[in-house]
Amino acid sequence: MRLAELSRRSGVSTATIKYYLREGLLPPGRQLNTTTAEYDAEHLRRLQLVRAMIQVGGLPVATVREVLGHVDDDSLGRTLRMGAALWALPQVPEPDEDDAFVRAAHQEAGALLETLGWSNAKLLTTVSPAYRSLVVAVAAFRRLGYDWDAELLVSYAKLMHEAARLDLDNVETYPSEAEKVETAVLSAVLVEPMLQALHRLAQEEESARRYGFE
Amino acid sequence: MRLAELSRRSGVSTATIKYYLREGLLPPGRQLNTTTAEYDAEHLRRLQLVRAMIQVGGLPVATVREVLGHVDDDSLGRTLRMGAALWALPQVPEPDEDDAFVRAAHQEAGALLETLGWSNAKLLTTVSPAYRSLVVAVAAFRRLGYDWDAELLVSYAKLMHEAARLDLDNVETYPSEAEKVETAVLSAVLVEPMLQALHRLAQEEESARRYGFE
Repeated sequence: MRLAELSRRSGVSTATIKYYLREGLLPPGRQLNTTTAEYDAEHLRRLQLVRAMIQVGGLPVATVREVLGHVDDDSLGRTLRMGAALWALPQVPEPDEDDAFVRAAHQEAGALLETLGWSNAKLLTTVSPAYRSLVVAVAAFRRLGYDWDAELLVSYAKLMHEAARLDLDNVETYPSEAEKVETAVLSAVLVEPMLQALHRLAQEEESARRYGFE
Repeated sequence: MRLAELSRRSGVSTATIKYYLREGLLPPGRQLNTTTAEYDAEHLRRLQLVRAMIQVGGLPVATVREVLGHVDDDSLGRTLRMGAALWALPQVPEPDEDDAFVRAAHQEAGALLETLGWSNAKLLTTVSPAYRSLVVAVAAFRRLGYDWDAELLVSYAKLMHEAARLDLDNVETYPSEAEKVETAVLSAVLVEPMLQALHRLAQEEESARRYGFE
């Protein structure tokens, strides 16, 4: 397809597509002559991925370029290629390791992973932004004197593990390795706002069921 | 307790407590004489709530004052008092109702609520920010040509309903109505970052289980 059709099918303006091409976020088309290039289904998919990261995920262009570099790196295994976007998403601030609540949260988060049997996640604790986010969240709870028991945390974690299984089951329905990796990156950006909206809506529903509207 | 002890037990500096008192986010203590006031356990709880909303939820002082107004309004039922913070949290931009994807997303979200039997949430669609967030998220998926089936959305929603039940079960363990409402507000602010961190961590775990680390 020509640029105009790529624009029509993606809903992205030709000016924006040209910008993405210049920035190297989209591979060049096959040049037919000096003024015309031809694009294919892979360009369309890549364009959707770029737009999701920029418009929905709010990632800066430089970060998107970095993520795509990992996505396209065949020397990495699927876990690392899929994780590329997740690790590039905006993260919570680093935990302050001198803080007593943070140190206690490391203990609590470590015990949680142990209880859950998440041995792989346990191996990643020194490098994973997700683990650091968990430590920050647990420390915030405890610092606020919020006294819930460890079992509640285990229950939440099991629900999120189920959500992660759904994510990956969906990823695996795509035929090619490139599509699998791209779908994983897309869903990393898109699934979180969806889960958050559903959680809030479910709270409204459940609360109204239990206590009515007044 | 005196101001110094309130500060020590809450971990909030006396200067910040005085600021909250001036801004009306914390009710005045019982004045013992012109320079000394006495604070109680309710002040401590309220202080933790205010700090959670400001430091973790990132809410502006004016919004916190508004939320507390609802929390303290005995004329409202528990659902509305508990929802006060949730509705004040930063929301996604309003959906553009002229957009074809947004109109289709309304259909899809409506059908989802029908399938789930969330009849209360359905009654709230015209006023609920959570419903609008869902419409925005669904429209983003569809606009990106992300073709997942309605059943996956139902499965995610059921998991989030389970999370909401856990939220409210926990809220109900608190004895007084004031504590119930305050805990609901606190958890609205604190539970989301926790679920997000657990979701990302679960994705790492599940991905490594399925594909290994390379």
